[in-house]
Amino acid sequence: MSEAVFEFPLKEKVRNYLRVEQLLGQLKSSASSESPQLQTVFFEQLFELLDLIERLDLRSDMSKDLDAHEKNLVYWSQHPKIDSAALEQALKTIVTLKQKLKTERRFGSALKEDKFLNAIRQRFAIPGGACSFDLPNLYFWLQQPLAERQAEINGWLQTLSLLDDTLAVSLSFIRERGQFQTVVAQGGFYQGVAEDKNELIRIRCKVDEGYYPTLSGNKYRYALRFLLFSPNEGQTASVETDISFRLAAC
Amino acid sequence: MSEAVFEFPLKEKVRNYLRVEQLLGQLKSSASSESPQLQTVFFEQLFELLDLIERLDLRSDMSKDLDAHEKNLVYWSQHPKIDSAALEQALKTIVTLKQKLKTERRFGSALKEDKFLNAIRQRFAIPGGACSFDLPNLYFWLQQPLAERQAEINGWLQTLSLLDDTLAVSLSFIRERGQFQTVVAQGGFYQGVAEDKNELIRIRCKVDEGYYPTLSGNKYRYALRFLLFSPNEGQTASVETDISFRLAAC
Repeated sequence: MSEAVFEFPLKEKVRNYLRVEQLLGQLKSSASSESPQLQTVFFEQLFELLDLIERLDLRSDMSKDLDAHEKNLVYWSQHPKIDSAALEQALKTIVTLKQKLKTERRFGSALKEDKFLNAIRQRFAIPGGACSFDLPNLYFWLQQPLAERQAEINGWLQTLSLLDDTLAVSLSFIRERGQFQTVVAQGGFYQGVAEDKNELIRIRCKVDEGYYPTLSGNKYRYALRFLLFSPNEGQTASVETDISFRLAAC
Repeated sequence: MSEAVFEFPLKEKVRNYLRVEQLLGQLKSSASSESPQLQTVFFEQLFELLDLIERLDLRSDMSKDLDAHEKNLVYWSQHPKIDSAALEQALKTIVTLKQKLKTERRFGSALKEDKFLNAIRQRFAIPGGACSFDLPNLYFWLQQPLAERQAEINGWLQTLSLLDDTLAVSLSFIRERGQFQTVVAQGGFYQGVAEDKNELIRIRCKVDEGYYPTLSGNKYRYALRFLLFSPNEGQTASVETDISFRLAAC
């Protein structure tokens, strides 16, 4: 039996976190490639990520999250049965990240000021616009020894490490907040009421029986509907049977 | 000594060919990947390619090219010293492609009608817009066994094989039309007059001495300038010394 976790954010903040997490994941995949083609893709992904983070205020969202997590941890530290070493470690991580968030500049600003990236960025907005004759400087860069190219790529990625680390902590706190419980979607449908703190609904269900969950909702309530995956007939057929799955409201 | 060939199209047609060639190359790289991240990138590349080819009339350009190449080959076949077996083979390829171009539909139309691709395409236009919660159907697809995913990806690529094959033949005829000749760019500058049939200027030069060529021009004349690659100071410094390189006007 093959399962997967589908995540559905209830708030804009978490929606943005997940988008950035996905782009960072793609970026790391193309960054580790040795082929010039996929390194070109790396730049495309990097600029897509920059487009996204430049119009978000991730830093202030994350700072608030870290504050809330810190308070939580301090509260738990008074609990007699808590693993105080692990808690200490978590607190330390948060304090370090909070400090760095205060002193470092906006996410992506080092990349925004990079002359080479700046020189090539505009062309990537055009389909097929980053050809060798559009950007002979990029083509030249792609001819340099692999080790040099990878070192530069790692340098660029490195400038995003605070974003990456803070995002990982924020999302892991959010994800760990909810516990998976088995529920049943009758006739493929399930309705839930979001509690005050719920920001993310996680669905763990089978992925080898041809159906997948969709969610519509907001911070007050949400509705889950399981749909049949049928590539040849569009994507509108609902499941009519009862489906048992696990749900965590985080 | 490390060298590379920089290509500069003089005509819109060849510019489009090279763009499509580059996107097809990237597409094949991400298609052969096993990671779900890079498979997501595959879709992004595929839609970028579709955006491009849907607004071009590649088929009529390529048909004209194939006609011209065919005439050329027939002309050469009367030359006594020609390798007639190779020529026969080339003619056969052209006749087959011409026939297929006539009977097959527009490039990309099979992909345009694919229900699954259609269902996910719109979201890819948004930075980070193809997240699991935006496209749970894509996320479901990415959870299917690797062999199944790769078979589908290959099926989609397969629908572009006529484009790929015809493009390869057209570009190889164009590229083989010119012979590399050694020339010198005095003070990093070289000016050339394009002959009637010239559509592409190919520059073979060193890529380990920190300079790269740029070209401005049209179908009548063109100017080459070698620039210094200096990532930290922008990209505007010209080379002042003489540079020996090879040039093919195709």
